[in-house]
Amino acid sequence: MILLLTSDPRDDPEAADAGTADWLAHLEEAMPEETIHTVWTDYDPGDIDIAVIVQPPPGSLAHLPNLVWIHSLWAGVETILADETIPPDIPIVRLQDPHMADTIAEAAAMHVLALHRQMPGYRALQNEHTWKDLGYAETSETRVGILGLGLMGSAAARVLAMLGFAVMGWSTTPKNIDGVESFVGESGLADMAAKTDILVNLLPLTPATERIMSSGLFDRLPTGARIVNLGRGPHVDDDDLLGALDTGRVAHASLDVFWEEPLPADHPFWDHPLITITPHVAAPTGRLTGSRIVADNVRRYRAEGIIPEAVDRRLAY
Amino acid sequence: MILLLTSDPRDDPEAADAGTADWLAHLEEAMPEETIHTVWTDYDPGDIDIAVIVQPPPGSLAHLPNLVWIHSLWAGVETILADETIPPDIPIVRLQDPHMADTIAEAAAMHVLALHRQMPGYRALQNEHTWKDLGYAETSETRVGILGLGLMGSAAARVLAMLGFAVMGWSTTPKNIDGVESFVGESGLADMAAKTDILVNLLPLTPATERIMSSGLFDRLPTGARIVNLGRGPHVDDDDLLGALDTGRVAHASLDVFWEEPLPADHPFWDHPLITITPHVAAPTGRLTGSRIVADNVRRYRAEGIIPEAVDRRLAY
Repeated sequence: MILLLTSDPRDDPEAADAGTADWLAHLEEAMPEETIHTVWTDYDPGDIDIAVIVQPPPGSLAHLPNLVWIHSLWAGVETILADETIPPDIPIVRLQDPHMADTIAEAAAMHVLALHRQMPGYRALQNEHTWKDLGYAETSETRVGILGLGLMGSAAARVLAMLGFAVMGWSTTPKNIDGVESFVGESGLADMAAKTDILVNLLPLTPATERIMSSGLFDRLPTGARIVNLGRGPHVDDDDLLGALDTGRVAHASLDVFWEEPLPADHPFWDHPLITITPHVAAPTGRLTGSRIVADNVRRYRAEGIIPEAVDRRLAY
Repeated sequence: MILLLTSDPRDDPEAADAGTADWLAHLEEAMPEETIHTVWTDYDPGDIDIAVIVQPPPGSLAHLPNLVWIHSLWAGVETILADETIPPDIPIVRLQDPHMADTIAEAAAMHVLALHRQMPGYRALQNEHTWKDLGYAETSETRVGILGLGLMGSAAARVLAMLGFAVMGWSTTPKNIDGVESFVGESGLADMAAKTDILVNLLPLTPATERIMSSGLFDRLPTGARIVNLGRGPHVDDDDLLGALDTGRVAHASLDVFWEEPLPADHPFWDHPLITITPHVAAPTGRLTGSRIVADNVRRYRAEGIIPEAVDRRLAY
């Protein structure tokens, strides 16, 4: 029996806003043969063998004695991995949605094209009623460096290469993607950064990648490089970024994710002329396609006892 | 012998800004066997058989008794066609640069992605320090209608289809482009408009297309459609556009071209919250690739007497 757990408050279904009702409807449609409970329905905790989760508060799963595995509806699993009430031998499966990868690749393409085409500069000129050509760099000479070549990073790399950019990517293990130069390891990161005009982050958040975008990396970029963060807020050291924007090392930052979300109204990023803010919308999880993937995984488990490949807790992705 | 004519002032080479010197350098490198004059060099007008032009003032070619043909370095030829001092039997060849078509297709992709991804709305929210998800429409359900499927329009159609948009195109004759629905004629225009979420103009400017984007067309769009003008300013009826933005029929307009360029500093478009302005930069003519195309055409003429396909003055493209 399945328990759907989200960040919605347990005591008040009316106040629900994490989409529990909408997820429930999609999941029930995708697997009508399953009984799916929520915190607002009556169930025996001992009956639950699978938890399907969207960022529930820590400790939410502690009352399930017979839990076998957990399916996260988010691609990022840093929150659930930090929950110490979950026994380490319970597999945590994250949603690997190719449709979501396409969606985030589209967001990467949009942000990179806007920076390549000097849109922040033209926006500033429009505010001043100034007609001025800011110049055009050939696409084939605009070098895009992607941090992370997993499902999302490699989808972004392919779209950007298709658009004609000179694409490079950095990952833990070497990757072979048509038209994409592969870099690995610490020295590979430094080498890639030195040639990067636009840096796009699509890494998972792990202890090893937290604050990866800090002065150490910014200082290796060519002067006037631009950055796009579609990963997680803690990938960026905010103070270092503000410093790099001040010195001109980084000419613009397009940020979709932040340490605290919603971004606090008094955060200095909001009014910064060299920062573009979007409210964590790069890759909305498609509830239709996501629910179908979960249903396939649940059915395979019921029929064959096979749990999909789980997150490696040591690597945290 | 070739004469290169631009909009640069004839009396002062120091004040040149239409790129005469840069065009000359590229053209001389591309065809070192040719003598290329400018208004600042000494030549016998009777020696000139080919004029290579970038928007010269009307009457600039009237002194050339033995002119055989004209090669425009711009894709748009509306200005030269309006010059009544040019005998109607002199062929005018326009630059058909596939590289330029790729560049304008890229601009179309950038503007369409930015509108699809609600970037003007997020910009306004950033100004207010407001964190709010404006929702995401599936790319495959976002219908892009392209006005014009010539070299540029079809390049844009292909890139947009590749990005996953539902692409339609309107042209004089039916076109067969993979994944692009073709519309022709006046009723075709109305049919396409009724299904268009984002309308992109890439038509040449002719008497038949002037003010094609006016109330008559806007009224057929679904409420809240967005428009992108990468053609020419006179394709848009400015007052009708302002009216359509007022009523919400058109939710946003991204404009690269205008009736008067530079756009006058007191034009109402500058401060309009629903208009994005770029200063005619969608497709900078690549001087390197453009010069090579001109050189190939000149060589073919010298060797075989063949003048490239000229503009049809009746159709004006």
